[in-house]
Amino acid sequence: MKTDRLLTPDALEAALRDIGAERYHIHHPFHKKLHGGELNRAQVQAWALNRYYYQAMIPVKDATLMARFPTAEERREWRRRVVDHDGDGQSIGGVGRWMKLAEGVGLDPDHVRAGAGILPATRFAVDAYVAFVRDRSLVEAVASSLTELFSPVIIAERVSGMLANYDWITKDTLAYFTPRLTQARQDSDWALAYVMAHASTPEAQQAVLAALRFKCDVLWAQLDALHHAYVVPGLIPPGAFCPEI
Amino acid sequence: MKTDRLLTPDALEAALRDIGAERYHIHHPFHKKLHGGELNRAQVQAWALNRYYYQAMIPVKDATLMARFPTAEERREWRRRVVDHDGDGQSIGGVGRWMKLAEGVGLDPDHVRAGAGILPATRFAVDAYVAFVRDRSLVEAVASSLTELFSPVIIAERVSGMLANYDWITKDTLAYFTPRLTQARQDSDWALAYVMAHASTPEAQQAVLAALRFKCDVLWAQLDALHHAYVVPGLIPPGAFCPEI
Repeated sequence: MKTDRLLTPDALEAALRDIGAERYHIHHPFHKKLHGGELNRAQVQAWALNRYYYQAMIPVKDATLMARFPTAEERREWRRRVVDHDGDGQSIGGVGRWMKLAEGVGLDPDHVRAGAGILPATRFAVDAYVAFVRDRSLVEAVASSLTELFSPVIIAERVSGMLANYDWITKDTLAYFTPRLTQARQDSDWALAYVMAHASTPEAQQAVLAALRFKCDVLWAQLDALHHAYVVPGLIPPGAFCPEI
Repeated sequence: MKTDRLLTPDALEAALRDIGAERYHIHHPFHKKLHGGELNRAQVQAWALNRYYYQAMIPVKDATLMARFPTAEERREWRRRVVDHDGDGQSIGGVGRWMKLAEGVGLDPDHVRAGAGILPATRFAVDAYVAFVRDRSLVEAVASSLTELFSPVIIAERVSGMLANYDWITKDTLAYFTPRLTQARQDSDWALAYVMAHASTPEAQQAVLAALRFKCDVLWAQLDALHHAYVVPGLIPPGAFCPEI
């Protein structure tokens, strides 16, 4: 939605949600195959392995962003995200829970942690996300997190579909996703309010819309690379994870 | 080739050349289709459009690297690359010649210059290359340029194959490649000698080998993204160039 005029809050929120409706990776064929039970164990392993790199970099991304807020209140708000992903030493965080998922689908945790065999395209996309929150304006950096507006639906599809369609995946393996449903809602409420309050010119509004498109690209490119390497045409780049099947 | 011992100069050069033999994008099916005449005009346009972004960022990459050399002699050597790509205001540089190529295959130069419709994966990979030469050690940054050791062969294949197989491509359109044959040889001779002189520990030698693998990944990921979007399965990401055919 292009405009030179200032959008009303409702119109801005609608434009943000339109981007999700068009570009969120819930529309990617790899996601459809994943929750539809059409992938084999090795393809699910490739997904878990590559996605681990994304998960592991999320607290790095959030710490980078947190460091840029000028007030303690804002940093505290964002710090909750870092705690959610890194844990607090007592309870396991999101990254640790994703490792349980990777182990649950049969991967060696040391390999996963080392990032051995992840697709270069995964690393390029994820690193672009960290660079974006470091280099762009603060309101664009916050806006890039707004894919969380759309994540409850994809998580619900993924969990119900994977439990129904793969008998080697247990509820325990997918425990990562349960707290994400409430965390993402709380996080995106705050981020959306922040964006509404701070994108106060037509230029800033267009910039936050572009930031959300960028983030959708980051997610989409990760599934593209998985699809291309492990589904169709199955062209695994040199050095990447080769399933033994 | 993994080792904890210091490689002889010959062994180090052989290990660098082995990486090219295994991982250079000359082995990618998109390259084979391109020079083999198996692509349609729109697919060649997608290649020219996306590769323009890479070409346009090369002098940015080289300026970033040049700024890190401690001596005038080294900076002068590297400056030649920037001149080769940016031109000198009299003679056209490599980026300008690539634009001629893009126009020659039917693209609008304003669209190409704006990067409209390039694949997000292209941007992520190219930006990763610029970040690499900024953030890694100087010898790793120089080593990442060593894919030029392998470029004369791919250029020869590309030019002869494209002229033979596409009657809508002229020698003039491919003028970009002619000076690259001598420039790349001169550049890679210097860079190889630099790497030999400066990678003086086993750790540094392993790091330069990894740097060249990284650069091969950058090139490979670009052809992967093109192949996936425009050849097989033809899954164009939201917002990317859609040929009207």
